[in-house]
Amino acid sequence: MSGVDLLTFGEVLVSLRSTGPLHLGGPLTMHMVGAESNVAVGLSRLGHRAALAGRVSDDELGEFVLRELRAEGVDTDGVRRDPDRPAGLMFLERRTADLTRVVYRRAGSAGSALDVDDLRGPLAAGPRLVHLTGITPALSDSARAAVTWAAREAASAGTTVSLDVNYRTRLWSREAARAALTPLAGYASVVVASADELDLVAEPGADEDTAVAGLLRRGVHTVLVKLGADGARAHTRDGVVHAAAVPVTAVDTVGAGDAFTAGYLSGHLDGLDLADRLQRAVALGAFAVAAHGDWEGLPRRDELSLITGSVAGTTLR
Amino acid sequence: MSGVDLLTFGEVLVSLRSTGPLHLGGPLTMHMVGAESNVAVGLSRLGHRAALAGRVSDDELGEFVLRELRAEGVDTDGVRRDPDRPAGLMFLERRTADLTRVVYRRAGSAGSALDVDDLRGPLAAGPRLVHLTGITPALSDSARAAVTWAAREAASAGTTVSLDVNYRTRLWSREAARAALTPLAGYASVVVASADELDLVAEPGADEDTAVAGLLRRGVHTVLVKLGADGARAHTRDGVVHAAAVPVTAVDTVGAGDAFTAGYLSGHLDGLDLADRLQRAVALGAFAVAAHGDWEGLPRRDELSLITGSVAGTTLR
Amino acid sequence: MSGVDLLTFGEVLVSLRSTGPLHLGGPLTMHMVGAESNVAVGLSRLGHRAALAGRVSDDELGEFVLRELRAEGVDTDGVRRDPDRPAGLMFLERRTADLTRVVYRRAGSAGSALDVDDLRGPLAAGPRLVHLTGITPALSDSARAAVTWAAREAASAGTTVSLDVNYRTRLWSREAARAALTPLAGYASVVVASADELDLVAEPGADEDTAVAGLLRRGVHTVLVKLGADGARAHTRDGVVHAAAVPVTAVDTVGAGDAFTAGYLSGHLDGLDLADRLQRAVALGAFAVAAHGDWEGLPRRDELSLITGSVAGTTLR
Amino acid sequence: MSGVDLLTFGEVLVSLRSTGPLHLGGPLTMHMVGAESNVAVGLSRLGHRAALAGRVSDDELGEFVLRELRAEGVDTDGVRRDPDRPAGLMFLERRTADLTRVVYRRAGSAGSALDVDDLRGPLAAGPRLVHLTGITPALSDSARAAVTWAAREAASAGTTVSLDVNYRTRLWSREAARAALTPLAGYASVVVASADELDLVAEPGADEDTAVAGLLRRGVHTVLVKLGADGARAHTRDGVVHAAAVPVTAVDTVGAGDAFTAGYLSGHLDGLDLADRLQRAVALGAFAVAAHGDWEGLPRRDELSLITGSVAGTTLR
Amino acid sequence: MSGVDLLTFGEVLVSLRSTGPLHLGGPLTMHMVGAESNVAVGLSRLGHRAALAGRVSDDELGEFVLRELRAEGVDTDGVRRDPDRPAGLMFLERRTADLTRVVYRRAGSAGSALDVDDLRGPLAAGPRLVHLTGITPALSDSARAAVTWAAREAASAGTTVSLDVNYRTRLWSREAARAALTPLAGYASVVVASADELDLVAEPGADEDTAVAGLLRRGVHTVLVKLGADGARAHTRDGVVHAAAVPVTAVDTVGAGDAFTAGYLSGHLDGLDLADRLQRAVALGAFAVAAHGDWEGLPRRDELSLITGSVAGTTLR
Amino acid sequence: MSGVDLLTFGEVLVSLRSTGPLHLGGPLTMHMVGAESNVAVGLSRLGHRAALAGRVSDDELGEFVLRELRAEGVDTDGVRRDPDRPAGLMFLERRTADLTRVVYRRAGSAGSALDVDDLRGPLAAGPRLVHLTGITPALSDSARAAVTWAAREAASAGTTVSLDVNYRTRLWSREAARAALTPLAGYASVVVASADELDLVAEPGADEDTAVAGLLRRGVHTVLVKLGADGARAHTRDGVVHAAAVPVTAVDTVGAGDAFTAGYLSGHLDGLDLADRLQRAVALGAFAVAAHGDWEGLPRRDELSLITGSVAGTTLR
Repeated sequence: MSGVDLLTFGEVLVSLRSTGPLHLGGPLTMHMVGAESNVAVGLSRLGHRAALAGRVSDDELGEFVLRELRAEGVDTDGVRRDPDRPAGLMFLERRTADLTRVVYRRAGSAGSALDVDDLRGPLAAGPRLVHLTGITPALSDSARAAVTWAAREAASAGTTVSLDVNYRTRLWSREAARAALTPLAGYASVVVASADELDLVAEPGADEDTAVAGLLRRGVHTVLVKLGADGARAHTRDGVVHAAAVPVTAVDTVGAGDAFTAGYLSGHLDGLDLADRLQRAVALGAFAVAAHGDWEGLPRRDELSLITGSVAGTTLR
Repeated sequence: MSGVDLLTFGEVLVSLRSTGPLHLGGPLTMHMVGAESNVAVGLSRLGHRAALAGRVSDDELGEFVLRELRAEGVDTDGVRRDPDRPAGLMFLERRTADLTRVVYRRAGSAGSALDVDDLRGPLAAGPRLVHLTGITPALSDSARAAVTWAAREAASAGTTVSLDVNYRTRLWSREAARAALTPLAGYASVVVASADELDLVAEPGADEDTAVAGLLRRGVHTVLVKLGADGARAHTRDGVVHAAAVPVTAVDTVGAGDAFTAGYLSGHLDGLDLADRLQRAVALGAFAVAAHGDWEGLPRRDELSLITGSVAGTTLR
Repeated sequence: MSGVDLLTFGEVLVSLRSTGPLHLGGPLTMHMVGAESNVAVGLSRLGHRAALAGRVSDDELGEFVLRELRAEGVDTDGVRRDPDRPAGLMFLERRTADLTRVVYRRAGSAGSALDVDDLRGPLAAGPRLVHLTGITPALSDSARAAVTWAAREAASAGTTVSLDVNYRTRLWSREAARAALTPLAGYASVVVASADELDLVAEPGADEDTAVAGLLRRGVHTVLVKLGADGARAHTRDGVVHAAAVPVTAVDTVGAGDAFTAGYLSGHLDGLDLADRLQRAVALGAFAVAAHGDWEGLPRRDELSLITGSVAGTTLR
Repeated sequence: MSGVDLLTFGEVLVSLRSTGPLHLGGPLTMHMVGAESNVAVGLSRLGHRAALAGRVSDDELGEFVLRELRAEGVDTDGVRRDPDRPAGLMFLERRTADLTRVVYRRAGSAGSALDVDDLRGPLAAGPRLVHLTGITPALSDSARAAVTWAAREAASAGTTVSLDVNYRTRLWSREAARAALTPLAGYASVVVASADELDLVAEPGADEDTAVAGLLRRGVHTVLVKLGADGARAHTRDGVVHAAAVPVTAVDTVGAGDAFTAGYLSGHLDGLDLADRLQRAVALGAFAVAAHGDWEGLPRRDELSLITGSVAGTTLR
Repeated sequence: MSGVDLLTFGEVLVSLRSTGPLHLGGPLTMHMVGAESNVAVGLSRLGHRAALAGRVSDDELGEFVLRELRAEGVDTDGVRRDPDRPAGLMFLERRTADLTRVVYRRAGSAGSALDVDDLRGPLAAGPRLVHLTGITPALSDSARAAVTWAAREAASAGTTVSLDVNYRTRLWSREAARAALTPLAGYASVVVASADELDLVAEPGADEDTAVAGLLRRGVHTVLVKLGADGARAHTRDGVVHAAAVPVTAVDTVGAGDAFTAGYLSGHLDGLDLADRLQRAVALGAFAVAAHGDWEGLPRRDELSLITGSVAGTTLR
Repeated sequence: MSGVDLLTFGEVLVSLRSTGPLHLGGPLTMHMVGAESNVAVGLSRLGHRAALAGRVSDDELGEFVLRELRAEGVDTDGVRRDPDRPAGLMFLERRTADLTRVVYRRAGSAGSALDVDDLRGPLAAGPRLVHLTGITPALSDSARAAVTWAAREAASAGTTVSLDVNYRTRLWSREAARAALTPLAGYASVVVASADELDLVAEPGADEDTAVAGLLRRGVHTVLVKLGADGARAHTRDGVVHAAAVPVTAVDTVGAGDAFTAGYLSGHLDGLDLADRLQRAVALGAFAVAAHGDWEGLPRRDELSLITGSVAGTTLR
């Protein structure tokens, strides 16, 4: 795993998608999904060396996940087969044209059993970036300990840490999330959140300005606020940059946030300035929503020009 | 549920079938499966009133199971939605042309949480037959207690009890199975087993004659031994009747044993003599193996003549 | 069939759907469809006891229809197999993105042979509501006689009768429809119609106000006027209530009217006031158009909150 | 239609195929089928000019049939659109691995309304061969009159007439068939039948030798007896030739008889001797059973060498 | 091929369509495509006799193309099988919701080897119209020579010649195209182009008015300018007529230009005046974009009324 | 690519499979296929480090091939994108149940342009085994030169070289193949051939014993003769070992030879003795034929026990 650009870790689920109401039966298609794997795929497709660490089940479903990760060029040396725990699953149905609904089967899964030992090797290999999400600490005590350990180790080794808040209602309460994620944010130089997630790494109820100010004070270098159809804002000590969402026909919005993050981190690895990072971020978000699947539509580097974002001038702070 | 001919109870799983190797992904089809539901469907299609009791998850997968049971005319008044437990799942892949392989996800499922209270109402309605399998007692302590309670209650009420041994290696050891099933067999008037399952309701290592003799001594009226492609034998105090398997092109052997049992019990409900019951049993087994799916190929009453079994004369004991 | 909330009767067709031009061949999918069965399914999914009476063919296609009705929990005790007549069919192709086209094969079908005797038993069981549509009387003389008989019997027994005008150009002329439906409306306490159907239960050419006034005069309690994308109006002696259509992404508008009616009747059975009935009606219409199929997208009771309608204040008459 | 090698006429049905039990729903595929169209396709693929006359419905289903005939190069100038009658349909399900079952919807169809006027033009064009089957006269009085008229006209014009007995139990009784087909056979120079159909063009109960002798006496030149897996026998005044069936893996036996006939008639048109005609006949039968569909697997001329039949020496009479 | 209304010639490709990203694999569907065959199908469906000349490969793919052309009633007597060259292919993927992408495999194909001799017979049969596109001359030297020869021959025989500029970036440069197409336009009485293609039959950089003026001066009777969603303009010596695009839901815009041309030429063959030709042209364009596939959605004559275009009054020149 | 166990090189094609006659159209599925990639996948699945070198097209089809190779864990560092040449394709149709037919589109493909420079790096990395096939030298002059160079280099470096004769009729004559392959065999320590290929690495017409004797004399250590359903023979200086084919239900025999070779080479890498290597070879052959696809059914190491071969005792020479 030497020479890795990005290391991320977390649970990769097997998603079983139905095109109609699930209770009517009908065919399901299998997909590898996960906020962290989405980011890893996004970077790998752009030519960066991305590695994923974590656990998958030691059965055909775990094999499926590994096969997909390898297919996408993601380094899987840090993925461990857990002989005792099953694959995390989710059933995804399109309930109405406007409403997608999920049935989870991830409690006690292999992916949720991540612990510190799973991360020692991958982290020791010295990645340039370590990317965390707020999902992994919600999975189990050992997973939370592992994420915290890795964030601290990476930060103290001078590795850039990014954190996507990614709050999941079904996994824990806002209070529990805040308690776990606020300290994590302290290790991060990049924090990504949607507007309503910002107070999970700040005081309860804090508004965007207050939350951002607090994060910058604690040493975060860049705070990215995802605004969906309104694009995104990047806050640094120098001020605020806004990027509009790229207008495309949206067919599947799942995975857009992860694509955005992957675009930003790719720009970071390429040494782009903030405006160009943001531009790549919104472009990747557009690729994600314009294709079916969480990551299937993400671009290779030679495809980046197919969709281009634009960024307004910086507002001085 | 009044006027029910057959009551059975146990777990109904959602089976997700792949036509190729599972680790390659590809479409999955959804099916309701379960030894007990297979028997219930078999009887319902033949015009008997069959009821299933048990628990299904309170989500879209549980709804799917209920929908399929209702479609097949199985009485679901005794099926309870469990708000706290997930659906039992199995992934079924055809690994090679000759080898089907299963990944189970049923531990802690709604179906496994069956308890005595779930069965009180259905049993009180006074079914003519109560059908048990050796799978349900393997699911949990409460399920084992429920089955034992129901067997005893039914027997003491003079209701005919049938037991299909149905040993499942992945759920428990032969020793644990023997310990649970041997007492159950004492309540049964019909016991169904494959040749290598017979000693699970007898002494360890007992051969067919010894095992059968013991069962008949304990009050079992008929012992049915399933012989696969060799048909089946029925033992009673009067002797042994053998039925050849009906020669059909087999495309899917799963569910053949349940179909056999359904055919026998249907003959019992219709008041047929032993040879005719057995003939119907092997005919239903043939329907099952000649079609894809566990129960999808079972006949309606007007279709019974499409495949007919034959039975050799009784050998006097 | 005791304890039935709603009884309805009519023809259930087998619809064969093509996703492309029918003359190019290609796969067809099978669906149970029918204005009356759509209403029955709508009520059953919401937890009401709905029963359908009528005839289906005594072959695999009739079996398919029965299987689907049972799957949806609709009471089929009053469905009779007709040994002499075939299943009613329709081929449905999407000719262009905006145009769906139908080829009917229903003349002389089992469903069209409905007669008074088919309805005696179901009606004697004492349903709370009897729902009629203007389709059934167009199918045959015996069907028209049966509907008229049932309307009169139900009305004289004090059972609430609802009538959806549901004019079908291909089955009869406006004159013939008016001659048959106007007397039927006299037995109804609820009449449902689109704006251009209103004069089929009034004088030829009557406008909405005139037609409604006439119906109210003849004893109809509520007249519901379906306005498509503009929602619906409910007229009573107290005035007019308007409900806007719920804004959802429409993918298939077929069945929206039946869903609307089912929502209204469900509210009636639940004892809701007029505004709340109307709100449920437009919500069900929204569920119907937001999913593929005539009834497949209809909600269960626990799903009602996914889409909520709104109703403007009553205009006093 | 000038220069046509073979003219045949009859009903072309739209077959809707299900791969599983029909009552479970599931996708259906559309196919053009018909004994006469199968023969026409078989000859067209081998490079002969084949024409079909008859009626199809004036809707999308009739259009589908025309499109398939044209795709196969069959001359459709003699196919008339009937504005008043629907397409003939059949539903075909594979009930078990060994049993295919059909639901017909052809009564009153466009195809069954064939009359003498439909055939005047096509026959006047002077085809080299006119092929009749015993199905068309069973469809209606006018169709029977048309077939008889055409057989007589063709025979009196010196055109070779072939007749495939093709008895269909569901359409008429053996007695009715015999009454209609026996006179027809008198116009034929080639009669094709399976062994159990021979007495439909002879005295009731006549055995093969008797029936053949009678036909030869009445002027028939060649009597072909199809023996399924045992191949076929050709009787002429010179004796009997037997051809073994070509051993191939059979996946769908429907259409094999029509393929056999097409092969024989192709050999006739090519001026082959009897043994070579028979060899081509059994080869085409083998192509038909080795592929799915009634005619889809039939060979082009350059494919004839892929499967070759063999014929035993002639037995002198 | 006598009595042909329209003769066109060029390459018919086999298009392999993927619904998702091509590099992920997944099923492909096969389609016959080609600007010239699209026009021929459009005219054939409207009841005109359309013939296509050209070469297809002498393998199963060439057979597929022939089968589709025949199915659509296009005269294929002038299609020659090339024993030495493969079928032209294209892979078409929907990269994003808004972006369709093509991988071509047509270099050295059978279709590109068209030469003068291939066209002698078809042209000698005396079609009423000869339709050329700017694609064929880009395929090879011999194809360019063949098109030029045919244009000249047809023009000198007084046959109406139409030319659709149809510039393909991947096949040749604008300069090469202009050099080949400008002389061709001199033989045409109808020239069809999109706005940005006009200067390929004029001086480089010429604007619409200049280009049109030049063409009219050179003897072109009508210049049709396709404006996509803005409809089309027809220039003649009498002035300009504009037709708005018909507002339909567009699901697949490929083939719209060919449909437009087919509509115009159909109107020409029917002797309609300019406004009515244009109206039919935009109507056919609407049919094309409202259905999937390049030509699959084109109307039969009885379907023309389903979508109707409108044309503004003529602006006098 | 350091630490590679097996290096192989050659063309990987995109196979487009139709389940029915190709000329009827219908869906195609995409598969990566190639004799060398099949061997590489076979070894990778068993846990060996396998690398493939060669060229793929620089488009979506080349991306597909790379994605599949990576998914299977094959090292693709030595795979080069060729910007100027297209992907090699093959269309594969099942013409009859017994006959699979192929249309190739590989002339001038990226894969055929392999040259010496493509192999320098991969070979320099020092693989333990180098595997060659007789297909690659048939693709082009540069490919033949590359294979010869690599064989000589590997042999002189003391690396084990294996050669599978793999004669392809469509690519070259037996004479040309013999001229190229006979010298190659001189570098190999393992030669694999079917019985009728043996004289392509010997004198024309040589029988098995003569050919084997010659090869052993020239330094080949082991000659493996594939006998299809009769298993295989391994000749060494010590004598002959025969292994029976493992009896399984064969559904697709393509790829069986490559699987056999992969099994043998895996045994070689594991240090097994000859009998055990051969046993693994026939077991892998059985896995290949028992599943659809060329390599899809190959086993992982933990699956090897699912099918086990057996080997007869050695016959002393």
